[in-house]
Amino acid sequence: MRHSLVFRSAIIAAAMIGVGAQAQTPAAAFTTDGKLEFPREYRTWVYLSSGMDMAYVENAGMADQHMFDNVFVDRASYDGFLETGHWPEGAMFVLEIRGGQGQGSINRKGLFQTGRMGVEVHLKDKRFASGWAFFPFNGEAPAQALPQTSQCNACHEAHGVVDTTFVQFYPTLLPVAKAKETLSAAYSAEEKAR
Amino acid sequence: MRHSLVFRSAIIAAAMIGVGAQAQTPAAAFTTDGKLEFPREYRTWVYLSSGMDMAYVENAGMADQHMFDNVFVDRASYDGFLETGHWPEGAMFVLEIRGGQGQGSINRKGLFQTGRMGVEVHLKDKRFASGWAFFPFNGEAPAQALPQTSQCNACHEAHGVVDTTFVQFYPTLLPVAKAKETLSAAYSAEEKAR
Repeated sequence: MRHSLVFRSAIIAAAMIGVGAQAQTPAAAFTTDGKLEFPREYRTWVYLSSGMDMAYVENAGMADQHMFDNVFVDRASYDGFLETGHWPEGAMFVLEIRGGQGQGSINRKGLFQTGRMGVEVHLKDKRFASGWAFFPFNGEAPAQALPQTSQCNACHEAHGVVDTTFVQFYPTLLPVAKAKETLSAAYSAEEKAR
Repeated sequence: MRHSLVFRSAIIAAAMIGVGAQAQTPAAAFTTDGKLEFPREYRTWVYLSSGMDMAYVENAGMADQHMFDNVFVDRASYDGFLETGHWPEGAMFVLEIRGGQGQGSINRKGLFQTGRMGVEVHLKDKRFASGWAFFPFNGEAPAQALPQTSQCNACHEAHGVVDTTFVQFYPTLLPVAKAKETLSAAYSAEEKAR
């Protein structure tokens, strides 16, 4: 009886430690040929912000097509950022592009979000020379990393204010980076010049 | 030694069951005088969608002020909706209003989100006559429910397509409601007429 209780408690504890530990495993999963698996659960990750028709989003210039970009990050990396103001190894950002529609149901003004037009991942992964890589998805098939010289890499390296990420556009994280003093020197100088 | 192991395993198991169970407790917490506590963790809840300058948001008509509205729901209620196409008792929606800014950092077009301008909660709570109540927050102080005859209540009752919620504006949930056939008869008829 006592043995049985030891055994059962140990199994329950082990199973639950397992569940706890799983949350700490990397958000990114790769295929055997090195492609990134589509992150199917990203809509339950932590939302960072949305933009509308922002200029750094590809195709944002189409006259009669409005677009929203939503950004999500995995929970463990979000918690890490709140603690340190930096992104931990494995941090995974999902950029989701959706259509914007003006007329629909009772809406008569402004825009609401519609179908998904694309998904791109930005991953902190030290196996890449810069420490980061971008993965543009075609539907939900596994995606190959863009070359390290891609426009995504170049623009993020030049203008991302924390660890090459666009924290300047994430209103709940910008105050954290300010408090932890992890903003890029270039951004801090630009802010002071205003 | 064995006693000690039983005891420790039992404590670990109990503690972890506690953690698991906590996720199922209602998202809403009330003060002793019946006001809703500000939901401090809502930015880690499940994001449903954002609108920009939508007409059903108060003050959306200001000419030189753009606004985004972000909607979040607690995770347990989101999981419940995916299963049934309806919202379970206790479902708690947070509407967050943020400013929209055009020029900033490298952005030259469109809008990105800035400071928070307001928070309102929509709660499924059977203690209210309609089964739902709205709570407009003033900062992060506890909020009183609006009268059941408020504009929020009236508009949601008239136009919310699932259980008085605006699922027509939540692009990942609308297909679920269609599949589970939980859309209001009025909306389904309107859709067919198109």
